[in-house]
Amino acid sequence: MIEDKMSQKTNISQLGEFGLIEHLTKHFNITNASTLKGIGDDAAVLDFGSKQTVVSTDLLIEGVHFDLAYMPLKHLGYKSVVVNLSDIYAMNAKATQITVSIAVSNRFSLEALEALYAGISLAAKQYGVDVIGGDTTSSQKGMIISITALGEAEEKEITYRNGAKPNDLLVVSGDLGAAYMGLQVLEREKQVFLVNPNNQPDLDVYSYLIERQLKPEARKDIPEILKALNIKPSSMIDISDGLSSEILHLCKQSQVGCNVYEEKLPLDPQFINVCEEFNLDSTTIALNGGEDYELLFTIKMDDYDKLKGNPNFTVIGHIAPPEEGIHLVTRANTKIELKARGWNALSE
Amino acid sequence: MIEDKMSQKTNISQLGEFGLIEHLTKHFNITNASTLKGIGDDAAVLDFGSKQTVVSTDLLIEGVHFDLAYMPLKHLGYKSVVVNLSDIYAMNAKATQITVSIAVSNRFSLEALEALYAGISLAAKQYGVDVIGGDTTSSQKGMIISITALGEAEEKEITYRNGAKPNDLLVVSGDLGAAYMGLQVLEREKQVFLVNPNNQPDLDVYSYLIERQLKPEARKDIPEILKALNIKPSSMIDISDGLSSEILHLCKQSQVGCNVYEEKLPLDPQFINVCEEFNLDSTTIALNGGEDYELLFTIKMDDYDKLKGNPNFTVIGHIAPPEEGIHLVTRANTKIELKARGWNALSE
Repeated sequence: MIEDKMSQKTNISQLGEFGLIEHLTKHFNITNASTLKGIGDDAAVLDFGSKQTVVSTDLLIEGVHFDLAYMPLKHLGYKSVVVNLSDIYAMNAKATQITVSIAVSNRFSLEALEALYAGISLAAKQYGVDVIGGDTTSSQKGMIISITALGEAEEKEITYRNGAKPNDLLVVSGDLGAAYMGLQVLEREKQVFLVNPNNQPDLDVYSYLIERQLKPEARKDIPEILKALNIKPSSMIDISDGLSSEILHLCKQSQVGCNVYEEKLPLDPQFINVCEEFNLDSTTIALNGGEDYELLFTIKMDDYDKLKGNPNFTVIGHIAPPEEGIHLVTRANTKIELKARGWNALSE
Repeated sequence: MIEDKMSQKTNISQLGEFGLIEHLTKHFNITNASTLKGIGDDAAVLDFGSKQTVVSTDLLIEGVHFDLAYMPLKHLGYKSVVVNLSDIYAMNAKATQITVSIAVSNRFSLEALEALYAGISLAAKQYGVDVIGGDTTSSQKGMIISITALGEAEEKEITYRNGAKPNDLLVVSGDLGAAYMGLQVLEREKQVFLVNPNNQPDLDVYSYLIERQLKPEARKDIPEILKALNIKPSSMIDISDGLSSEILHLCKQSQVGCNVYEEKLPLDPQFINVCEEFNLDSTTIALNGGEDYELLFTIKMDDYDKLKGNPNFTVIGHIAPPEEGIHLVTRANTKIELKARGWNALSE
């Protein structure tokens, strides 16, 4: 699935390190005024004038964060960028630049790296960020991707995790759990494929879930919409590690409690169907699935009318004083303490 | 050599990803005024006011860039930071922040990671940079370190690779080749150790070379000294990939030629002795060794008097028109075309 076996392959060591960087990065154009110098010197040079700069970084390891058996390289490149930008948007900022470092073992050809960079390039274009630097090297095993994203915002716009106050409303963008169920579908198909490589899976009924897993989008639009609605969130976080885990982070840093309502959790119909097919509890997956790249934020009660009925947002609960704790209120109206069971990259 | 076998080990999966990050980063203090928010949100927040921001990134892979058989983890942490900062100083800028991402396989204990972070922390303190973020995850094999460094400078101070002009003088800081010969000594001792683990090597006569390999320093002082001397270099580059290779980069980007004089290359006496011991040509190693983390820059002829006699600098040649090519002028006064034979991370 990774490579077209018939096409010609170029061994990357033929180009050398500098030749490879030059080859892979020659199509990266500079579009942001804040980018003074991109790739090609010891460091990139940026100028954010009177704005503030935000920085975020992620490290993705083959076999831990992605599986090339069902993740095409172009999608992987795209997703690697999106994952990072999501953190910038979670600061209520505009993403402007990324650096991209890649390490690959010699099982990857030049064409494989080109596919990866095509995805990176597409994401950079889609999100309007400049690729300003990076490092390309060899690994002893598998592929490693490290991306650092930079962004800018006015001082008064930047939204931290620690500003939630009792009675604020808890809001999430998009819907929950689809990326996780997309992964379950892909894992199942991988097993089927291993048993019978000629089996042609019909994945149409899973298309939304698979897209959420393989080609997720970051919510570039949310800071823009919030600004247009004249809403400054009191706190914001991205929910890549799972809703429960991120609610706990937000509440811990804001030193508040919270009530989340099970019946309010926004779920896509395809997600609900596939949870039934897999005999999984949709609430559990929505709370703990992870990789949704949606934004979770809090707003003042007074701002509710501004976003009421907006299809991008769902109010899922409210902030409470710290002594009330952090709970899920079930459909049966019982309160269960919310615990993080999010994806843990360090568990074995 | 990596670990004290008697000490107690803590499995890192016991802490979980967030617990681990918190544990490892709790001692990182913020010291730069430009750091508004460090670790603990989706992104760090910086404010460079009216200055410009420089950004550099590096990816280090166990077995490719370092060998834990002779590289203690604390040294590795220190060196990983230094490698990145060197690129910031090569822009004639002040380093101010770093992000640090680490991936480790489960063969590493918490204590091992603490040693690595102790080195990172020491380097951050030594160089006055704030650790503002990062990512900690698991790898399928070995250790992976990704560091992104940020710095600041006045617009007029920033020095690119492309500003060298014919008749400019070519200057290098420090001395050349020692880090490479340090590596040769360590590789030899590793082989001796594999044959007879009880052999206690006497490495005193190699101390300078080994220090250059295991605990290199970046030239934070050079931008400061140049400023004090009122010299603005016309171009600058760090020579981590080897002098030859970096001279070629600088000349290519500046579209100039260059003559480098063999007799001018600054060599430490210990380096010369050990080259003889290993039966290696000291000029070849000085030109191609790599990992010296010194700075190579060009200055106008008029500025020569300002740095003449300064022990930090050696004038090793001069820039020529492009049609003259790029040559080494040997002690026998013959001209040899300079070729890059620097360390290539992608060759097998």
